[in-house]
Amino acid sequence: MALPFLTQARAPLTREIGTVNEHGDAGIISIPAERPLTVYVDRKELVTLMTLGARPEWLVLGYLRNQRLVRSVEEVESITVDWEVGAAAVKTRSGIKRLKERTARRVVTTGCGQGSVFGGLMDEIESIHLPPAASITQAQLYGILNAIRLQESTYKSAGSVHGCALFRGDEMQLFVEDVGRHNAIDTIAGWMWMQSEDVAPGEISSAGRPPLGAASVGAPIFYTTGRLTSEMIIKSAQMGVPIVVSRSGITQMGHEIAQRLDLCAIGRATNRHFLCYCAPHRLHLQPELAGPKLRAVA
Amino acid sequence: MALPFLTQARAPLTREIGTVNEHGDAGIISIPAERPLTVYVDRKELVTLMTLGARPEWLVLGYLRNQRLVRSVEEVESITVDWEVGAAAVKTRSGIKRLKERTARRVVTTGCGQGSVFGGLMDEIESIHLPPAASITQAQLYGILNAIRLQESTYKSAGSVHGCALFRGDEMQLFVEDVGRHNAIDTIAGWMWMQSEDVAPGEISSAGRPPLGAASVGAPIFYTTGRLTSEMIIKSAQMGVPIVVSRSGITQMGHEIAQRLDLCAIGRATNRHFLCYCAPHRLHLQPELAGPKLRAVA
Repeated sequence: MALPFLTQARAPLTREIGTVNEHGDAGIISIPAERPLTVYVDRKELVTLMTLGARPEWLVLGYLRNQRLVRSVEEVESITVDWEVGAAAVKTRSGIKRLKERTARRVVTTGCGQGSVFGGLMDEIESIHLPPAASITQAQLYGILNAIRLQESTYKSAGSVHGCALFRGDEMQLFVEDVGRHNAIDTIAGWMWMQSEDVAPGEISSAGRPPLGAASVGAPIFYTTGRLTSEMIIKSAQMGVPIVVSRSGITQMGHEIAQRLDLCAIGRATNRHFLCYCAPHRLHLQPELAGPKLRAVA
Repeated sequence: MALPFLTQARAPLTREIGTVNEHGDAGIISIPAERPLTVYVDRKELVTLMTLGARPEWLVLGYLRNQRLVRSVEEVESITVDWEVGAAAVKTRSGIKRLKERTARRVVTTGCGQGSVFGGLMDEIESIHLPPAASITQAQLYGILNAIRLQESTYKSAGSVHGCALFRGDEMQLFVEDVGRHNAIDTIAGWMWMQSEDVAPGEISSAGRPPLGAASVGAPIFYTTGRLTSEMIIKSAQMGVPIVVSRSGITQMGHEIAQRLDLCAIGRATNRHFLCYCAPHRLHLQPELAGPKLRAVA
């Protein structure tokens, strides 16, 4: 399989600004960088993404994948990012058919904002079949939460970004941050494709397919600091990830779609606490690991 | 001035779902409702918004305003929301010119997601002039934070929503929640127009224009639980609001645009703490209200 050529454009992830606090004291803090990246596909302008800029090539690749504009990583010949002009030039091997038509419908989704998911995405949910046997143990879940806690991050130094990570069991494979959490999950989707992860969206056939990395075991598990909205659930399912863990809660559409997909959605996950919202059969409880129950004082 | 006719479609704001926690205990929690609302302008499909559904008519009106598709509230004859079919029918008095062309460019913005702001919005920043004398005192800021703390909310009962509010001085005029914070600010923009707030976007001329309500005094101040991203700053400025307060932080583009607009951006605002990021001359510090400084123990 021919993987696309990707540049490795880097740019500073934070910048310093001056502040004044409640005591009238001047100070300096770091804030996350945020820069426009206009995506051109075969020289046609597609979209402008606002991004932290940590992994712009994977972001663009994952964006094309999650918007279902590209069906296979092999369709992309190269992605060239140039921060000087804020542009990502995507070259495809044989063009994208009906690009204009396929990006015409607009659904403004929830996120924290009005995320744009090109139309037809919801229609394809029915074609996604997640591996029925994929599961997570409570011990693995605690391992994930601990790994996130220990992870160095732009969030810790500058705040105001969302983090996402991909795990196999409790082994972290990739950690990504961006100003928008959709960018973070798209970046993970792009990275997955670059790992010769050659299962097309919606064609996940069984729990038994080879793990991404040689040393990795267990089902793929997606972690996000953000809420489990419909788009996060859909994107996760599109990547063939049947288990999603969030520090935050879930929205109604996220819940409905997770139920339809039999996707295990776990939220409010910090320290030893969590709530499993959907598909609890995928979660092997080990309540003895949870510590003592807090009791209300009479 | 002829204000549009608006329905008052209501729908439940929360729903209950079953959960399992870390002890293996089953429970019931409330989550925010989230429903698609497809906006038709003169029978042409424009966009689908995912919304909590608290104030759908103001949301649609504010969306049209903040996307600059409608320049004056008088252009809209009626907005009819029907939750049975998830549709908002907008009837204009004389049509929107070049609707298709004006919604063709797409900028995927930060938010928490990939918010969609129709192109050209950034181009118009230069035309916005915020009232130079508008300011806020530290006492007013504390009054705002206290009012937010006391406000009954879907957030308190179900989490996973963003809240926005509009103040005059420290008097709350409107409090809105939605699954997406852009929906919340758009809803405020719609409400402002319905208050015969007849200043067109970008045409705020002075600090001395009449206050919205008879009893209200002081500059308009916008509060949001979400981050101060570029779109939030731009939308606030478009509504003629020169002071923005957030529980969260600021992103780089938000900071740059606030500086260019001379918009006072205050973040990390909880209890008595805050950081003023931009235009500190609009903030009258009263450090004696801040309480004692915390000192590091040697």
